[in-house]
Amino acid sequence: MWPHTKLTEKLGIQLPIIQAPIAGGATTPELVAAVSNAGGLGSLGAAYMQPDDIRSAIKKIRELTQKPFVVNLFIPEKFQENAQQTKMMCEIVEKACAELNIKINAPKPPYAPSFDEQFKILIAEKVPIFSFTLGIPGDEQINELQKNNILTIGTATTLKEAQLLQDKGIDIIAAQGSEAGGHRGSFLAPVADSLIGLFALLPQLVDHLNIPIVAAGGIMDARGIVAALTLGAAGVQMGTAFLSCPEAGTHPKYKELLLNIKEDHTVLTRAFSGKYARGIKNKFTERMTLNNTDILDFPIQNAFTRPMRKEAEKQNNIDFMSLWAGQAAYLSKGLPAADLIKILNNEVIACWNKFSTFPSSERY
Amino acid sequence: MWPHTKLTEKLGIQLPIIQAPIAGGATTPELVAAVSNAGGLGSLGAAYMQPDDIRSAIKKIRELTQKPFVVNLFIPEKFQENAQQTKMMCEIVEKACAELNIKINAPKPPYAPSFDEQFKILIAEKVPIFSFTLGIPGDEQINELQKNNILTIGTATTLKEAQLLQDKGIDIIAAQGSEAGGHRGSFLAPVADSLIGLFALLPQLVDHLNIPIVAAGGIMDARGIVAALTLGAAGVQMGTAFLSCPEAGTHPKYKELLLNIKEDHTVLTRAFSGKYARGIKNKFTERMTLNNTDILDFPIQNAFTRPMRKEAEKQNNIDFMSLWAGQAAYLSKGLPAADLIKILNNEVIACWNKFSTFPSSERY
Repeated sequence: MWPHTKLTEKLGIQLPIIQAPIAGGATTPELVAAVSNAGGLGSLGAAYMQPDDIRSAIKKIRELTQKPFVVNLFIPEKFQENAQQTKMMCEIVEKACAELNIKINAPKPPYAPSFDEQFKILIAEKVPIFSFTLGIPGDEQINELQKNNILTIGTATTLKEAQLLQDKGIDIIAAQGSEAGGHRGSFLAPVADSLIGLFALLPQLVDHLNIPIVAAGGIMDARGIVAALTLGAAGVQMGTAFLSCPEAGTHPKYKELLLNIKEDHTVLTRAFSGKYARGIKNKFTERMTLNNTDILDFPIQNAFTRPMRKEAEKQNNIDFMSLWAGQAAYLSKGLPAADLIKILNNEVIACWNKFSTFPSSERY
Repeated sequence: MWPHTKLTEKLGIQLPIIQAPIAGGATTPELVAAVSNAGGLGSLGAAYMQPDDIRSAIKKIRELTQKPFVVNLFIPEKFQENAQQTKMMCEIVEKACAELNIKINAPKPPYAPSFDEQFKILIAEKVPIFSFTLGIPGDEQINELQKNNILTIGTATTLKEAQLLQDKGIDIIAAQGSEAGGHRGSFLAPVADSLIGLFALLPQLVDHLNIPIVAAGGIMDARGIVAALTLGAAGVQMGTAFLSCPEAGTHPKYKELLLNIKEDHTVLTRAFSGKYARGIKNKFTERMTLNNTDILDFPIQNAFTRPMRKEAEKQNNIDFMSLWAGQAAYLSKGLPAADLIKILNNEVIACWNKFSTFPSSERY
């Protein structure tokens, strides 16, 4: 077993491995509980869930585990809407996914569940840990979290974001490297200016902050974990690595793809949600590059493409699903979460043992 | 001292630390020799040098060290030119650097030194090691290098590029992560599709190839070196780390900037050369984003901005210099190359010692 660290102590877990929250159904209560039961920390990606569904999912998680777990939300931000652009996007999306043979209707507000209502459930349920991305909660909300002894994990893609999170009293920072799959958590500067690889991002945060930094992005195995700890991380957050677990709600075709790719095929795209996110290239991301400037703000674009994604799932057609994945997705293993964590633990220990004899060993 | 590894044996060096070649005068013979004398491997960035100047520099390096060293060239590729665009770029550059108060004249071909002539010097001088980027030499040239026992280091930003380099008989691959400063070495897919962070790039290359992989990008200190070796690299190539050395030909104002920044301020820009390269943002990169689509192909754009850059250096004006730097440039130390390498060596050994007692130690 690994040593107790300030992070594991703080979180009340055995191994500093956080299963990253992924909005959209992949992080089922079964996955969250399996990770927490195995000594890691499971996270429910609840950003797109209605408050009542979040409450049910939390209940389910608590039936499956006594261990701590995380619920994650997106911090809402202002968006622009324009009837003309909205009308045009119906046609663009319909054309881009012509093979599905569906009709896209302009969604009506609200385009996403109410953050305030979601947040109330987390407080009412006193979830052990709240993680968030795309911004930072208001001061009153942070106070309420602290009053309720709910630990907080914020997401930063630059030092400035991390400093703000620390200044606001957030407990732990997930440092999202440019390698990471899913939505970019950037909230202070444009995404294009906030794509820092973990090799450069981790030291910057570790050198300037005094709260634990968790490394996120491209970490799939023990090599990545030990490298992240070497660079000063207190632990890791792994998303893609858990997407192919049988407990994950990932579509079977998406899992199959993760298990069969041999190298990085990802792209940063606004096509699905209106916000930049990293996923495996497919017909939809490629076709939408032509209409890149027409893509609507988050969460309108997300509401627009939802029927397409749902239909693509029904039709087993990966060309029009969002296939979030990090740049090392080819290392997906498809193991049950508990087995994956057990292997990671054993391999990390083996890696340390190798290090302790390193100066006398033969190596490239 | 570190263990002998297949890489250090192959290269005839003591420490698997390669000082990255940087075209444009930063990697002086004094720097190259200082690095090689200290047990690392110095590299002359000769891409923009005329053949005779390369010969003189090699002579100088050989006067200063008996140790192996590298000479690096850019592999040329086809480019388009168009009189109308060329005329327009004169005005754009002049306007963008109005503060320098200079006249920009359209450069005339040849826009860059002849690769074939540069290459002949390397063969005639039988340099110990040839490294290259932006492509791959022709089969005959590779044959000639092998016949002359010149070791080769190719640059890859994706697995496909690395596989091609290995298939062509290249000896060693520098894996350029998205964190890296200077020109992107991508040559098979567009740069935007070839920006893979080292956490994801290194395992991909190490898992699929059987020649030594050297990690490049964002590595500035022992943490980065040990993390890269953990991910399977056989050694590291560090560029920015050596730019602030007194032996480097870096402009004093540029060095000052490197030593004073506290976080990543880099941007990928085509503004200076026509090819994507990472450098610290300044007025010129910001102003040219407005004219991004007008930027000419490499090396025409490079020839265009040369007078501006030279004048900016004369005027000590960093707003219009190219300030190549990786995403961890804030870790610049300004030490003599030999001192830097000595510290890296000591810290790497200390890091390993810490690992060997790791399971019992307290740590975040």
